[in-house]
Amino acid sequence: MIVVLKPHVAPEKEAELRQYMLSMGFTVQDIAGESTHMLGLAGDTSHLNAETFARFDIVDHTIKVRESYKLANRRFHPDNTVIDVNGHKIGDGSMAVIAGPCSVESEEQILSVARDVARSGAAFLRGGAFKPRSSPYAFQGMGMEGLDLLKIARSKTGLPIVTELMDNSCLDVFEKHVDVIQIGARNMQNFSLLREVGRLKKPILLKRGLANTIDELLMAAEYLMAGGSFDIALCERGIRTFETATRNTLDLSAVPVLKEKTHLPIVVDPSHGTGHWNLVEPMALAATAAGADGLIIEVHNTPHLALCDGAQSITPEVFHTLMGKIQRVHEAVSDN
Amino acid sequence: MIVVLKPHVAPEKEAELRQYMLSMGFTVQDIAGESTHMLGLAGDTSHLNAETFARFDIVDHTIKVRESYKLANRRFHPDNTVIDVNGHKIGDGSMAVIAGPCSVESEEQILSVARDVARSGAAFLRGGAFKPRSSPYAFQGMGMEGLDLLKIARSKTGLPIVTELMDNSCLDVFEKHVDVIQIGARNMQNFSLLREVGRLKKPILLKRGLANTIDELLMAAEYLMAGGSFDIALCERGIRTFETATRNTLDLSAVPVLKEKTHLPIVVDPSHGTGHWNLVEPMALAATAAGADGLIIEVHNTPHLALCDGAQSITPEVFHTLMGKIQRVHEAVSDN
Amino acid sequence: MIVVLKPHVAPEKEAELRQYMLSMGFTVQDIAGESTHMLGLAGDTSHLNAETFARFDIVDHTIKVRESYKLANRRFHPDNTVIDVNGHKIGDGSMAVIAGPCSVESEEQILSVARDVARSGAAFLRGGAFKPRSSPYAFQGMGMEGLDLLKIARSKTGLPIVTELMDNSCLDVFEKHVDVIQIGARNMQNFSLLREVGRLKKPILLKRGLANTIDELLMAAEYLMAGGSFDIALCERGIRTFETATRNTLDLSAVPVLKEKTHLPIVVDPSHGTGHWNLVEPMALAATAAGADGLIIEVHNTPHLALCDGAQSITPEVFHTLMGKIQRVHEAVSDN
Amino acid sequence: MIVVLKPHVAPEKEAELRQYMLSMGFTVQDIAGESTHMLGLAGDTSHLNAETFARFDIVDHTIKVRESYKLANRRFHPDNTVIDVNGHKIGDGSMAVIAGPCSVESEEQILSVARDVARSGAAFLRGGAFKPRSSPYAFQGMGMEGLDLLKIARSKTGLPIVTELMDNSCLDVFEKHVDVIQIGARNMQNFSLLREVGRLKKPILLKRGLANTIDELLMAAEYLMAGGSFDIALCERGIRTFETATRNTLDLSAVPVLKEKTHLPIVVDPSHGTGHWNLVEPMALAATAAGADGLIIEVHNTPHLALCDGAQSITPEVFHTLMGKIQRVHEAVSDN
Repeated sequence: MIVVLKPHVAPEKEAELRQYMLSMGFTVQDIAGESTHMLGLAGDTSHLNAETFARFDIVDHTIKVRESYKLANRRFHPDNTVIDVNGHKIGDGSMAVIAGPCSVESEEQILSVARDVARSGAAFLRGGAFKPRSSPYAFQGMGMEGLDLLKIARSKTGLPIVTELMDNSCLDVFEKHVDVIQIGARNMQNFSLLREVGRLKKPILLKRGLANTIDELLMAAEYLMAGGSFDIALCERGIRTFETATRNTLDLSAVPVLKEKTHLPIVVDPSHGTGHWNLVEPMALAATAAGADGLIIEVHNTPHLALCDGAQSITPEVFHTLMGKIQRVHEAVSDN
Repeated sequence: MIVVLKPHVAPEKEAELRQYMLSMGFTVQDIAGESTHMLGLAGDTSHLNAETFARFDIVDHTIKVRESYKLANRRFHPDNTVIDVNGHKIGDGSMAVIAGPCSVESEEQILSVARDVARSGAAFLRGGAFKPRSSPYAFQGMGMEGLDLLKIARSKTGLPIVTELMDNSCLDVFEKHVDVIQIGARNMQNFSLLREVGRLKKPILLKRGLANTIDELLMAAEYLMAGGSFDIALCERGIRTFETATRNTLDLSAVPVLKEKTHLPIVVDPSHGTGHWNLVEPMALAATAAGADGLIIEVHNTPHLALCDGAQSITPEVFHTLMGKIQRVHEAVSDN
Repeated sequence: MIVVLKPHVAPEKEAELRQYMLSMGFTVQDIAGESTHMLGLAGDTSHLNAETFARFDIVDHTIKVRESYKLANRRFHPDNTVIDVNGHKIGDGSMAVIAGPCSVESEEQILSVARDVARSGAAFLRGGAFKPRSSPYAFQGMGMEGLDLLKIARSKTGLPIVTELMDNSCLDVFEKHVDVIQIGARNMQNFSLLREVGRLKKPILLKRGLANTIDELLMAAEYLMAGGSFDIALCERGIRTFETATRNTLDLSAVPVLKEKTHLPIVVDPSHGTGHWNLVEPMALAATAAGADGLIIEVHNTPHLALCDGAQSITPEVFHTLMGKIQRVHEAVSDN
Repeated sequence: MIVVLKPHVAPEKEAELRQYMLSMGFTVQDIAGESTHMLGLAGDTSHLNAETFARFDIVDHTIKVRESYKLANRRFHPDNTVIDVNGHKIGDGSMAVIAGPCSVESEEQILSVARDVARSGAAFLRGGAFKPRSSPYAFQGMGMEGLDLLKIARSKTGLPIVTELMDNSCLDVFEKHVDVIQIGARNMQNFSLLREVGRLKKPILLKRGLANTIDELLMAAEYLMAGGSFDIALCERGIRTFETATRNTLDLSAVPVLKEKTHLPIVVDPSHGTGHWNLVEPMALAATAAGADGLIIEVHNTPHLALCDGAQSITPEVFHTLMGKIQRVHEAVSDN
C-alpha cells in the first residue's frame, strides 16, 4: 500500500503516522516524487482498508497495490478449479450448460423441460423453487414443493440440480438435497448468507450483483472460501448501466478478466443478462467464444405462459439448435 | 398497461392474445397509431409484470402506465407519514438528525459520542453492532455486545437507537430492543429479510441500494408495508456511477422526486453518500435545502482510530458547528 | 405517442390540450385506465419530443411508442445495407476486419503494419492522423502529413483507409482522399460535424459515444442519412460504467439489438472496448460469434513504443493468429 | 507515477524498462512490497499517459499519483478565479444567477424574459441561438438572427449574454458579440473546438459531459487555459446513470470536490440536471447550500409553448420567488 501525503506536512505529524504504521507491523519506505512525498508499506496489507490511513489529516489519499482476495487469487493458486458433481464438470475445458425454467411450476412442466434439455446435452438442471421478486404481490415460487419436484426431475434424468438459496432458514435442506447452491445477484453481498453457506462445503454458483465490480465478486467468493467452500463457479449475468434496450448490460469482458485474476470457473447467463429470448442465442455464442466455462440458460416449454421471466426464456426446440452452435463455436476457439 | 403489437399481425394470433387478457379479468381497448396497433388494458395491473405479455410472439413491447406500489403511493395516501419514537419524530416538518459512529467499539466510545451528539441536538443515535463488510477478514462488528452498549447509551441520553439488522436470526432481539431497524443498502432487495422485518411493525430506516432505482426503493418499502409496517423512512445514500472522486454519487434529486411519489419521510446519508468527511458538511446542507426530512451522519470521537469508515466520519466538534448551519438552512427553506 | 393525464383534471384544461394536439395535425383518441386517463395521438410523431406535452400542467407524463429514426430503421428498410469500397465490403455476410495502428507515426511504421495486416487478411487499414487526446500536452497526431502517409500505404497495399475526422476544417481533404471517414465516440453528438459530413455522401464509420444509448447512436446515423450519406457502419466500442477493470464496458448485446433495429452494418472495436491488448482476442471472437459484420483492431509493430494506445495494441504476429480464429468462429456461426 | 511489476521478472527485462525511464528524463526509485516490486518515477509526469509503461510485458499496472492538470489546479494556484464582465461577477462570493430561455424564439420573447429575470436579480442572460438537438428533424435554433436578438436584449437590460458555440465556423462572431461563450456538454471533449475557443481569451462556461469524470472536466478546462483563456466557469449539469426518474443525475458532490481541486468558479444547472421544472427549485437551493458560485436556470414566459426544453423551464413568477429563497440559503451558508 502506498500512502500519498499532502504537501508541506509538519514533521511531528508525519512521525506520528509513521509510528502508527510501524505499530501495525509494517515496514515503511520513503518514496519521493517531484512535488509529492509518499510512504510505501511492506507487510501483509490484505486485511487493511484503503481508508485506514485516510483518517490522518496529512494524508492526501492511499493506493492499494495488491488485491484483497487470497484464496480466490490465481497469483497464489495457478491451477484451474474444476467442479465435479458425479462426473458433471465445470471448468475442465468442456462447455458446461445449465438449463431449465426460471421457476418450477408443476411436476409435468419440470419433468418435460428436464428431459428435453438432458436430451440436448445440458449438464445440469436449473429451476427456481424460492424466487426473489421485486414486487410482494408477484408469484414467489413453490418453495419446498418445488424442491421436491426438482429431486424427482434429477432422479429421472440424472442431471444434478442448481437452485437458488435465499436465506439461512433452508440451509439444512439445501445441504442435503441440492447439488449446486445458487447465490443470486441480489444476495451477492448478503454477507450473513455467504458466511453460512460457505460452511456447507458444497458447490456454489455465485452470481455477480447488478452494481458490483469484478473485484467485489471475487471478495464475495473469498467469503465463501474463507468458510471452507472451494468449489465455486462465478456467474456473469449483466450489470446495470444507462442502456435500457436490454434488461442489463452483459459484461462479457469479465470472462477473460476473471480467467486472469482467478482459478475459479466462469459461467455466463445470457437470459438474465439480456432479458430478451431472441438475444439469448447470440450472447450464448459470444460467451462461448470469449472463453466461458459454462452457460446458464432459461428454457421453458411454454414461455408465453411462464409464471416468471417468460420474455427471456427459449423453447426446448430453440435450445436444441443452440446447443449445436455452442458446440461448433467451442470447438472453433479450443486450442487443438 | 399498454401492449404494443408488431406490424402485420395475424388476426387469429391477436384474438388469442385478447382472449388471454380477458381471461385475466381485464377490459381491452384498441388504440390505433399510424403505423402501430396497440391494446390498452384497464383493470388492476399493479400485480402484473411488464413482461407478462412480452411472451407472445406478436407483442413488440409493453408499457406500464402506473406504478406497482400502492401502500407507499402518495396518489392513494396523500398525507405525510410521521414516524414518532417517544416524541422523537421524522417527517413532521422538523429536521431529524441521526448521528453516531459507524461501529460501536466500546462503552466509553459510544457513551462519549452519544452524549456529544445529544448535546448538539441529534434526535436519534446510530451505531453499528452487526457490520456488513466486503472483506471476510475485516472487523465484523461487536454483535450482541454492541447492542447492549447501545442500550446503555440510550438510557443515559434518551436518544432512540437506530442500528442495522443483517439477517433473520436476530429478529427477536431487534424487535425487543431496537427503536428503528435499519435495512442496509446491500439488503434492500433481500426479500426474505424484508418479509420478516415487515411483520415486526416497528419503525424502519430503509436504505436505497447502490444500483437501485427510486421505483425499486418504493417497491422494497411496499414489501415492508405489505407485511404491516407503515413507519418507514427511506434513505438516499448514494448510487454507483462511473465517477470515482466520491465513494458513491449522492442523488439529491431523489429527495424531491420521492416527496412527490410517496408520503414516507426521506432521510439523506451524506457520510456514505460521499465517503469523505470533508464533503459531509456541504452535502448535509444541500440535502436540507433539497427538502429532506432527516439526515444520518457518522460521528466519531477519534476518526483516525475508528475501526470502520473513519475516512467519512466527522468529529463531535465539527458536528456541533454543522448542526447550527443545518438549522439555519432549514429555516431558510421552510415556508414561514 | 400516449399522453398520460394527472387524476382529477379540469375539463376546460383538457379541452385546451386536445385543441393544441388537433392544431398540430394529430388525431386524438381517449384511452381509459382504471385510475388513469390517457390520450393517444395518431399521426407522424417522429418529429415530436417526448417533452412536447409535458409542459401542460395536467400532463403526468408522455410515452413515445415509436422510434424517432426513419431512414436508419429496419422497419421501413428491411434489406441490409452493404458498404462497398472498390470491392472491400462491410455488411455482405463476410467478416470485414479494419486493422492498423492507433496513430500514424512514420512512413516506415505505417507501411510495415499495413503490409502485415493486408497479408493476414484485413480488408481496410486504419490509422489516426488527427487524434482526440484528453490532455492538451499529449501527442496530437501527425495531421496532414499522417494523411499523406496513409495514402502511400493504400497505394502499396490496396487497402482502403479509415481515419478520423475531428472538425469541419478538413472536410475537403477527407472528401478527396479518405475512403471511410471515422466519426469518433466523443463526436457522436457533435451535430455540426454530423451535418457537414452527411453532405459528403461518403462511407462513414460512426462510433457510439461513451454515454450514448443505442437509440441515440441511431439518431446520430439519422443525422448523417438526412444529409444524404447512406453507407454508414455503426461501431460499438464500449460504454462507460462503474466497472474499472476494463477501460470501457464492451456492450456486445448491442450487436444483435442493432441488427434488429437497423439495416446498417455493425462493427465492433475490441481494442478501445477493453483497453488491454490481452482482452482483444477473446472479445474479437465474442463479437464475431455475436453476429458483428466487422471488427476494428489496433495493431502496432512495436506496441511498447507506440505514441498512443500501446497498452491495447496487438502485434502483427498476434493479429495473424487471431485472424485464423476469427475465420473459424465466423464459419461456426454462419448458417450453412 | 508508480509502475507495479509482475512477479518473477527477468533482470534484463527490468533493466530495459529502467533504461527507457531514465532516457525519458525521470529518476527511478525501487519500492519493495512483500510480494510486489515497484518502480517509482520522479520528474514531471503530467505529460505521461498512465498507459505509457503498460506496453512493457513485465508491467502489471501503473498508478498515477498526481493530477494531469496544472493550470486549473488549486495546488499551484490557490487563489479563487473571479470572472468579471462589466462588474457582473462569478466566483467572488456572491451567488451569480444566469437565467433565460432554452432557445431564443422571437424578439418579444427574449426581451420579455430578459426584463423579467433582470428585475428578479439575475446577473447574466442565457439563450440559445445555435441548438444541439438529438434529432435532425427538431428545431435547430434561430442562428445568427437569435444572436442579434440577444444583443438587443443585452442593450435593453444591461445583462451580459451567455450562449452556446457549437463549432469553429462562428468563432469571429462569438468573439465580437458574446460575453460568455458556453461549451455544451456534448462538446466537452470536442478538442478541436476547445483549442480554437481557448485562443479567444474570453470568459467561458464549460459544461461537464454526460459521461465525463470530474478529472476529465478539469482536463477540458486545461485545454482552454493552455490556449490562453483563464476565465472559465465549470458547470455541473447532471451525469448519465441508470436512474430514469430524472433526465440526468445532478452530481452536487462535484461542487465541493471541484472547490478543493481547482480555483475556477463552479456553476450548477438544475434545469438540465433534472429535466423537470418542479425539481428546479429544490435543486437550485441544494446547489446553493453545497457552495456553488452560480446557477444557470431556464426561464420561459410560456413554457408550455416553448420550442425546446419546455418541460424543464420555470416561469418568471416562479423564478422571482426562487431568487428570494436562493438569497436566504446563500446567506445561511455564508461565513458571517
